[in-house]
Amino acid sequence: MIRKLVLIPVLFLTLALSGLARADGHAPLPSWADGGPKRNIVEFVERVTTAGSPDFVPPEQRIATFDNDGTLWAEQPLYFQLLFAIDRVKTLAPQNPEWKTTEPFASLLEGDVKTALAGGTKAILEIVMASHAGMTTTEFEQIVDEWLATARHPQTGRPFTEMIYQPMLEVLDYLRANGFKTYIVSGGGIEFMRPWTERVYGIPPEQVVGSSIKTKLEFRDGKPVLVRLPEINFIDDKADKPVGIHRHIGRRPIASFGNSDGDLQMLRWTMAGEGARLAVYIHHTDAEREWAYDRKSKVGHFDKGLDEARAKGWTLVDMKNDWKTIFPAPE
Amino acid sequence: MIRKLVLIPVLFLTLALSGLARADGHAPLPSWADGGPKRNIVEFVERVTTAGSPDFVPPEQRIATFDNDGTLWAEQPLYFQLLFAIDRVKTLAPQNPEWKTTEPFASLLEGDVKTALAGGTKAILEIVMASHAGMTTTEFEQIVDEWLATARHPQTGRPFTEMIYQPMLEVLDYLRANGFKTYIVSGGGIEFMRPWTERVYGIPPEQVVGSSIKTKLEFRDGKPVLVRLPEINFIDDKADKPVGIHRHIGRRPIASFGNSDGDLQMLRWTMAGEGARLAVYIHHTDAEREWAYDRKSKVGHFDKGLDEARAKGWTLVDMKNDWKTIFPAPE
Repeated sequence: MIRKLVLIPVLFLTLALSGLARADGHAPLPSWADGGPKRNIVEFVERVTTAGSPDFVPPEQRIATFDNDGTLWAEQPLYFQLLFAIDRVKTLAPQNPEWKTTEPFASLLEGDVKTALAGGTKAILEIVMASHAGMTTTEFEQIVDEWLATARHPQTGRPFTEMIYQPMLEVLDYLRANGFKTYIVSGGGIEFMRPWTERVYGIPPEQVVGSSIKTKLEFRDGKPVLVRLPEINFIDDKADKPVGIHRHIGRRPIASFGNSDGDLQMLRWTMAGEGARLAVYIHHTDAEREWAYDRKSKVGHFDKGLDEARAKGWTLVDMKNDWKTIFPAPE
Repeated sequence: MIRKLVLIPVLFLTLALSGLARADGHAPLPSWADGGPKRNIVEFVERVTTAGSPDFVPPEQRIATFDNDGTLWAEQPLYFQLLFAIDRVKTLAPQNPEWKTTEPFASLLEGDVKTALAGGTKAILEIVMASHAGMTTTEFEQIVDEWLATARHPQTGRPFTEMIYQPMLEVLDYLRANGFKTYIVSGGGIEFMRPWTERVYGIPPEQVVGSSIKTKLEFRDGKPVLVRLPEINFIDDKADKPVGIHRHIGRRPIASFGNSDGDLQMLRWTMAGEGARLAVYIHHTDAEREWAYDRKSKVGHFDKGLDEARAKGWTLVDMKNDWKTIFPAPE
């Protein structure tokens, strides 16, 4: 009974503070300009969380999925995971002298990323396998942690985990405060994201869906380890985003957020369910504060998705006008 | 402020009731006989949940994984999913007249399961693919629901979802009440389990890890569907249980429960982490109330695991003596 009596004032205080916050008029999504996208998000959340409403959705079915590259954090001038892979190739070059004369490594090591990537998917796969496989899962996690602690964005000089969108952090918080489970569903590597998504986005590792390579159980000094193999397991992109969602979550999301054609099937899959639904596309329109790109960009290619968002009346976020802030203030 | 004032008495009442429950002496795990296994489970939970204890584990890291067949529900005389597949082959036989003369279907249709399964893995795969693939994921879910609603266990006559272990339901509840996330990690089909695990075990679909076949996004009448393909994606058994755990959860469990050699690597993987750990093996020793089998059984083969549990002092549950009740009372 003593524990109970101590807890009650704490709970009272928490409730009182949360009540005060509302009474003070702290509206959700403060970094969003008033307008259609913000209104769509807030109205959707109110509809599905209002008990007795015909659109009410029980909490366990409140699943929201978010693309990562270009939706939760930036993706220019290149996907950050590719920058990681390039740094990794440079670090490993002394142990791989043959790379000096083998593409795509030779060009990469000379700093000519464009030529290195001219080999397309095959070249990218070789770079990924050389940089992402061959170690245990625990070792890879440490490598990612160390890279993120020291690497800086080539244009802004900021840590990559600060190249995240403040307005989207607010959406994640707002949805979770309303009983949603928030998931990442990204073409990026699942094990490249998991070490930091909980700290940076509040998304725990078990709510990250992504691309993966195969792993294998081995024993080292009598202890089981999982070794990362140079073999693709799953590419969580385009038509395989619904496949990844179904495999990991087993429920259809009621809200999805993306920014490129790679997210189109995820948004279609979300909208094809019954009841209230929300599809949000982030359109990169701000060349000054971020980057402006869509139909002609290789990274974050946004063409069919842009047409479909307009044709179907999905929520289209104009980054320049709808976001008052882009990145959080430096820590 | 009005909402806040209404909420407080409710919270107070909830806390008071939870306090009273303890004051009343409602101990956890009522269907467990007093003894080593029950004590091990309770002591482990108290150690990892006591703030300030050197063994304290933050709630987000309290992951517990459970095998399903033979650990949460029965698995004799055959894995229930195999009984489902056999029923499904019978239902589909009129549309597949060639099965009358093709093994393993011909023997199955004549009721000779033993001969049908004599073909080993190849025969089982053919039965699974014929019965589990070719429909959408939504259609498959309906097929599973309908089967579970009508099928009965061949020996007890009870619905399969009542062939579950009351003591394990209590462990699941007890762990969740102490901040654990409970996961199934089963060799069974992930989509065979998800339609009912939330209702029966309180385990939501996103916390089910299992074997899977590949799926593919298609459009029917303009609507996206996922079609189940006759191709194995992942077999979540033996050395691949840690692989499945890592892929789906991305954290190492601190407690695992199994009953066969198929779970041994999962238990090893769990115990190889740092800090307080719990490995529990259920030993089927009760030929009267359930079944008694271990080293010589094909279903639920338990040989190396039994030796290792004894050698390492893991918690070994003697079903006959440690469980006061096996199955819940009929509904």
